[in-house]
Amino acid sequence: MTKQLSIEDMASFCKRKGFVYPTSEIYGGFAGFFDYGPLGVELKNNIKRHWWKTFIHSREDMVGMDGAIIAHPKVWEASGHTDCFADLVLKCEDKEKCGFETRADHFIQDTLTTKDFSLGENLGAEEINKIIQEKKLNCPQCKKKFQKVQNFNLMFETQVGPKQNNKSKAYLRPETAQLIFTNFKLIHEHARLNLPFGIGQIGKAFRNEISPRDFLFRTREFEQMEIEFFVHPDHINDCPWIEEMLSYEMQVLTAEAQEKKGTHTLMKVEELLDQKFTTSWHTYWLVLFHRWFVHLGIDQKHLRLREHRKSELAHYAGACFDIEYQFPFGWKEIHGNADRTQFDMNQHLKVSGKDISVYDEQTKGKVIPYVAAEPSQGVDRAFLAFLFEAYEENTERGNIVLHLHPQLAPVQVGIFPLVNKLQDKAKEVYNQLKTEWVCQYDKSGSIGRRYARADEIGIPFCITIDFDSLEKKDCTIRDRESTKQVRVALSSLPQILPALLHKEKLLEKVGKPVEVTP
Amino acid sequence: MTKQLSIEDMASFCKRKGFVYPTSEIYGGFAGFFDYGPLGVELKNNIKRHWWKTFIHSREDMVGMDGAIIAHPKVWEASGHTDCFADLVLKCEDKEKCGFETRADHFIQDTLTTKDFSLGENLGAEEINKIIQEKKLNCPQCKKKFQKVQNFNLMFETQVGPKQNNKSKAYLRPETAQLIFTNFKLIHEHARLNLPFGIGQIGKAFRNEISPRDFLFRTREFEQMEIEFFVHPDHINDCPWIEEMLSYEMQVLTAEAQEKKGTHTLMKVEELLDQKFTTSWHTYWLVLFHRWFVHLGIDQKHLRLREHRKSELAHYAGACFDIEYQFPFGWKEIHGNADRTQFDMNQHLKVSGKDISVYDEQTKGKVIPYVAAEPSQGVDRAFLAFLFEAYEENTERGNIVLHLHPQLAPVQVGIFPLVNKLQDKAKEVYNQLKTEWVCQYDKSGSIGRRYARADEIGIPFCITIDFDSLEKKDCTIRDRESTKQVRVALSSLPQILPALLHKEKLLEKVGKPVEVTP
Repeated sequence: MTKQLSIEDMASFCKRKGFVYPTSEIYGGFAGFFDYGPLGVELKNNIKRHWWKTFIHSREDMVGMDGAIIAHPKVWEASGHTDCFADLVLKCEDKEKCGFETRADHFIQDTLTTKDFSLGENLGAEEINKIIQEKKLNCPQCKKKFQKVQNFNLMFETQVGPKQNNKSKAYLRPETAQLIFTNFKLIHEHARLNLPFGIGQIGKAFRNEISPRDFLFRTREFEQMEIEFFVHPDHINDCPWIEEMLSYEMQVLTAEAQEKKGTHTLMKVEELLDQKFTTSWHTYWLVLFHRWFVHLGIDQKHLRLREHRKSELAHYAGACFDIEYQFPFGWKEIHGNADRTQFDMNQHLKVSGKDISVYDEQTKGKVIPYVAAEPSQGVDRAFLAFLFEAYEENTERGNIVLHLHPQLAPVQVGIFPLVNKLQDKAKEVYNQLKTEWVCQYDKSGSIGRRYARADEIGIPFCITIDFDSLEKKDCTIRDRESTKQVRVALSSLPQILPALLHKEKLLEKVGKPVEVTP
Repeated sequence: MTKQLSIEDMASFCKRKGFVYPTSEIYGGFAGFFDYGPLGVELKNNIKRHWWKTFIHSREDMVGMDGAIIAHPKVWEASGHTDCFADLVLKCEDKEKCGFETRADHFIQDTLTTKDFSLGENLGAEEINKIIQEKKLNCPQCKKKFQKVQNFNLMFETQVGPKQNNKSKAYLRPETAQLIFTNFKLIHEHARLNLPFGIGQIGKAFRNEISPRDFLFRTREFEQMEIEFFVHPDHINDCPWIEEMLSYEMQVLTAEAQEKKGTHTLMKVEELLDQKFTTSWHTYWLVLFHRWFVHLGIDQKHLRLREHRKSELAHYAGACFDIEYQFPFGWKEIHGNADRTQFDMNQHLKVSGKDISVYDEQTKGKVIPYVAAEPSQGVDRAFLAFLFEAYEENTERGNIVLHLHPQLAPVQVGIFPLVNKLQDKAKEVYNQLKTEWVCQYDKSGSIGRRYARADEIGIPFCITIDFDSLEKKDCTIRDRESTKQVRVALSSLPQILPALLHKEKLLEKVGKPVEVTP
């Protein structure tokens, strides 16, 4: 990661290379909404695919689902979103002429220096009104006073059906989680699973942010990969795999340290558990996702766990940790994991009147499952973290290098004819490989320029067809990380590529090193 | 396909097996919205994955993108959706007490017998008012008269940002296509592609249907897989691959035959082209998708092309064909492909004032690309067609068999220990295979019951670990289609499974046939 890279620089890089565009760019964009371009959609799909493979397909205790974005409005009543899912908005007292409006806590964070003030998000209304008064904060646009802060519900509303009235009001889901709760009972029956087990889902969610900002970081439309993990309420501390994790070490910023303005410390899983910050099931899932980020190339030093302070906890949460990534603009949440207790299940039981309990073999009675962990992963934030981590302005090569994990890279293999005469052979190789891998054929410019172009979009391996290829039926493979090249037989590519792309072997082991082609 | 299976039977099967649930089922459902359960999400993902692999990754002239669901409202102004995207609604004159409302054309289709009347969708307002009067049709609920038909815009509206006024109005996209047009210029530059080339996209779209019906067939929230294929306006008939397709034969229902109440006829591609129903690029993409359905297991006899009559054509279309599937409830559109001409590109040019033309090497001038084909595929309709085609109540076996293509099957491999004693070995095999394939481990009930359960969710291959497996390190593989079993070495599974799942070899060729295990 190049530390100086600002979020604006990243947005500009993403647009330039076809990763991400402001939506409706020809109409000047639309704040808080983005479109993923040809490379962006591939990177995003790879993140989602890897998540699904790791957390759904590879586990016996997980199944997937895919719920509707618009659900019955009762769902959001039961979940508390209709009443509680709001941010505080600060409005200029001059509604007519000025009309300035902003998210109150962010305004205060941005306006007051950190020396002056150290505040998290989610300040209360009273607290904010007090700060506004004490610090004499005025409208930055017209310098007049602010009105008292007001609640602003973040759910997008719409009307369903031809009758447009209060009964037809519905919402775009502000989180995917509730769809898992409302389907819990059906899935429990059909998937023939017993507690503990989890349900995962990937899909869009919408929040009418007062002030969307920081590129993909705070948008109004985003995508989530969420798991709800259900356990027996008497066994929230009985994760059978916690032992293997005990000596795993992470940076942790505890709630206490935050209050005391202390910094994060290195902590082992046993310390987390000893200090009763969390249960074993909750910790297990926190560590799994921490490892997932590390496995996909994020430096441990750029990750930390941050415990939510009591005042920050959502209305449904018994405890909550974020995984934060050290962006150039500070430590920011890229993953949240709440212990949601039995709150949601009890609410849906109460509001729907339907029996959504499960039968417990041991006690021969019904129990309401306990949601011990909710690993909630924003796809767009993961996308951003992987890009920041991968981005390097390589002065030696004179070009940007995206050090993306081969499993995430939007293009897996570049295929180049050294000169135009060799196009037939190169095309033959391309046509053979593209049915299995995501390939890019590139014939324009010098071979050095093509390698540079490949580096900039993170292609991990480039195959060059040269004159020797015709006679000896071989080619060179060039490694993005080391720029080293080896010569291998064309016939061996189907065996070599899977190993390389899974990082199973080093490039040096698969072929004969060659001098760099001019 | 079992022909007697009604759409209600299919909905019930889908719920029972965990394919699809009405959304928010514990709150009584929400008309027009559905959730995909554990098996449904896998089948749906497989359809999307196969589409992306076939039409994006395997082609040099295609790239993908993923746009926002909420775009700048100007997009829908330019596209004509704000003004024109409406259905006609028929309302009871008694607004207070009765309040009955329904989609006018469907009401007339359903109410009048086909002998009496033969009508398509999209009747005009005048035509409908006339029919209502002539046939003396009244409100089916209170028997009073209807009001004159009214236009009802099908776009879901919402408000974006904290200010709620006319300026903040936005829409959930009613089609994914427009996002491709608005990004065309950026993608053209970044993906370094020249005409002809296409852009593909998968994502949700929303239509506030007046009367959603027929399960997944007409919903308010659905998913599209769309391609816009851009060609030079002077070369809309210059598809270089059309020759290979000339003798390909399909059932076609022409507009003329529809007017004359004739039936569809078998037609070769050359006949389609000769009769100037369509251009070569348009035909090329129609045939590709026809082949895609056939490749994935749909019987050619259940597919036909239907030409849109002039009165049916959308405001942007120069010509349009549907691929229809013969559902038990009739021939229905599962795929649409319009020749969108330069309509959309010209509109965005006009409304945005931005230059979205491309430079043409040959004429050394700018051209507005021509959208020669728009293969638009509803994911949910493909899902439904594949399920109907696959479904069989097999009287011989005494259970349902889902004959899904192995590439679509939600679970690829079942792994069973013959008896509980063999669980360790079976788990070992399961753990080894699940990293590569979607596997299901099943130990409960007789082996026959487990095969039946596997048949019902379409698992193509089941591996059984028996006592011989321990000594001889082998297992049986059972083929869903034939119920035949062969014995193979456990070590050979990683080589055999890919071939089986790609239908490359017959099961008989890979191992020694065995007597059916009791």
